[in-house]
Amino acid sequence: MSILVVGSVALDSIKTPLARCRDVLGGSATYFSMAARHFSPVSLVAVVGTDFPAGYARLLERKGIDTSGLMYEKGKTFRWEGEYGWDFQNPKTIATHLNVFSHFNPSISARHKKCRNVFLANIDPRIQEAVRSHIKSPRLVACDTMNYWIESKRSRLVHLLKKMDIFFLNESEARELTGESSIVKAAKYIRRMGPQAVIIKKGEHGSLLFADNYVFSVPAYLLENLYDPTGAGDTFAGAVMGCLAGAKRLNRRALKMAVVYGTIMSTFAVESFSLKRLASVTKSDIEKRLRLFRKLTLF
Amino acid sequence: MSILVVGSVALDSIKTPLARCRDVLGGSATYFSMAARHFSPVSLVAVVGTDFPAGYARLLERKGIDTSGLMYEKGKTFRWEGEYGWDFQNPKTIATHLNVFSHFNPSISARHKKCRNVFLANIDPRIQEAVRSHIKSPRLVACDTMNYWIESKRSRLVHLLKKMDIFFLNESEARELTGESSIVKAAKYIRRMGPQAVIIKKGEHGSLLFADNYVFSVPAYLLENLYDPTGAGDTFAGAVMGCLAGAKRLNRRALKMAVVYGTIMSTFAVESFSLKRLASVTKSDIEKRLRLFRKLTLF
Repeated sequence: MSILVVGSVALDSIKTPLARCRDVLGGSATYFSMAARHFSPVSLVAVVGTDFPAGYARLLERKGIDTSGLMYEKGKTFRWEGEYGWDFQNPKTIATHLNVFSHFNPSISARHKKCRNVFLANIDPRIQEAVRSHIKSPRLVACDTMNYWIESKRSRLVHLLKKMDIFFLNESEARELTGESSIVKAAKYIRRMGPQAVIIKKGEHGSLLFADNYVFSVPAYLLENLYDPTGAGDTFAGAVMGCLAGAKRLNRRALKMAVVYGTIMSTFAVESFSLKRLASVTKSDIEKRLRLFRKLTLF
Repeated sequence: MSILVVGSVALDSIKTPLARCRDVLGGSATYFSMAARHFSPVSLVAVVGTDFPAGYARLLERKGIDTSGLMYEKGKTFRWEGEYGWDFQNPKTIATHLNVFSHFNPSISARHKKCRNVFLANIDPRIQEAVRSHIKSPRLVACDTMNYWIESKRSRLVHLLKKMDIFFLNESEARELTGESSIVKAAKYIRRMGPQAVIIKKGEHGSLLFADNYVFSVPAYLLENLYDPTGAGDTFAGAVMGCLAGAKRLNRRALKMAVVYGTIMSTFAVESFSLKRLASVTKSDIEKRLRLFRKLTLF
């Protein structure tokens, strides 16, 4: 089954202690699609400016991503500039220029409205809810968020969560949203807010899946060389949602394997700037890394 | 096979956001022994003052720990006072009174010199090396350390590591000792310094085992209620070393299972102040938690 993602397509400028890049292809919907495509057909809805390089759009198309929902608006593309320290975590934002993304008002085509699996990437919860209302017969709807929305639009977000099947967030966001310091308690709290499954992203420490009567803890895959963590969370979500859209049943086994594939795919995202490595990954690269991951964690 | 641990027996005063306690039984050798005893006979070598409560010594004996190496010296017992914030990590040290521990000079009895498995808990590397030199026919020798020794006695520590089979340390210590930001590179570097196995403790995020040609990543067990993390690392090391002392062969399987049992035992340590929960744990409690841990992590 196909999956619809609504989020950002951006131009990133990133500095790490080892290298830097300028105006490379980024954005939540981009990373998400590039991971999900291995598991299910993906349609992307986002907005870019007229300055958006044609080569970037062609890359997405060439990888089989449906870009009919990529809108071009007069103005500049959303730009983010960030810098990582030696810990390669929590980048310092140098500049955020929302540009055409500041008035993003996604129009969902008749065909896209029929998509039954939907991911609402980190955008204003008001927009997330509007998109959700267009979906005719949802099977699986998930969203991501960030501390900015928890702080500035909490009630909107809480309202949205009632209609979500899966909620992706990181540890500090889970604590901030619930006021619980225990991640177990925070996840239980969030599940009572609506989502059947809560997936806590822990970056280099792996992830936690909380669902009906069970918890699943995935350690991170170990990489010797981390190049740029930008997009890892969206890549993770892309693989998780791609797997689930392709799964016959949304049972425990499907959810667990989806989170494992999410972990695997995110390791490719962090091995280069932008989508350089992620875009060239093959099925066999993925399965090879899965086998290594099993060896790394099995006891 | 029995195991010898040389380290501290202390009186801890701890404050967490939920509760506080004063002058309770603590210390690296204490936590270590209380975990290791489930897997192998343990002999403890440490020093306390004449103020050390007789009830605490009796508790250790009652749990089958050989306390013939617990020396009483004129003066006060080592005291540590710390406070945890809501993250329940990295306590703020309010006060450290080394007292009799400041001139700790362990004398190892003829019987203890024959112990073939030894754990040198976090003390001055000069003392760790002196103890190591007394061991007649070592089979497995491991040590722990802390940033203080990495900063103040680096060359002593590096010298000691040449003679270690296993080195336990946390992530920031590994980075500080090696100057490598990548944990994989740091562990490889440390293995070249001597230890065949390096075990990186990540607190609530689990642990990593680096050995000959393989890496093993263990996620943390998830606890809903964390009470006091003091002693978790020593409890972890105690279970790991106890398992290995009891193992017929020190192969991959034995090392992996030792690290898994280390994870399990440390969860009991953090469920109460001091040794309250840890001292009452039964074999069946441990096996039950192991089964839950398998369910939590298997895919």
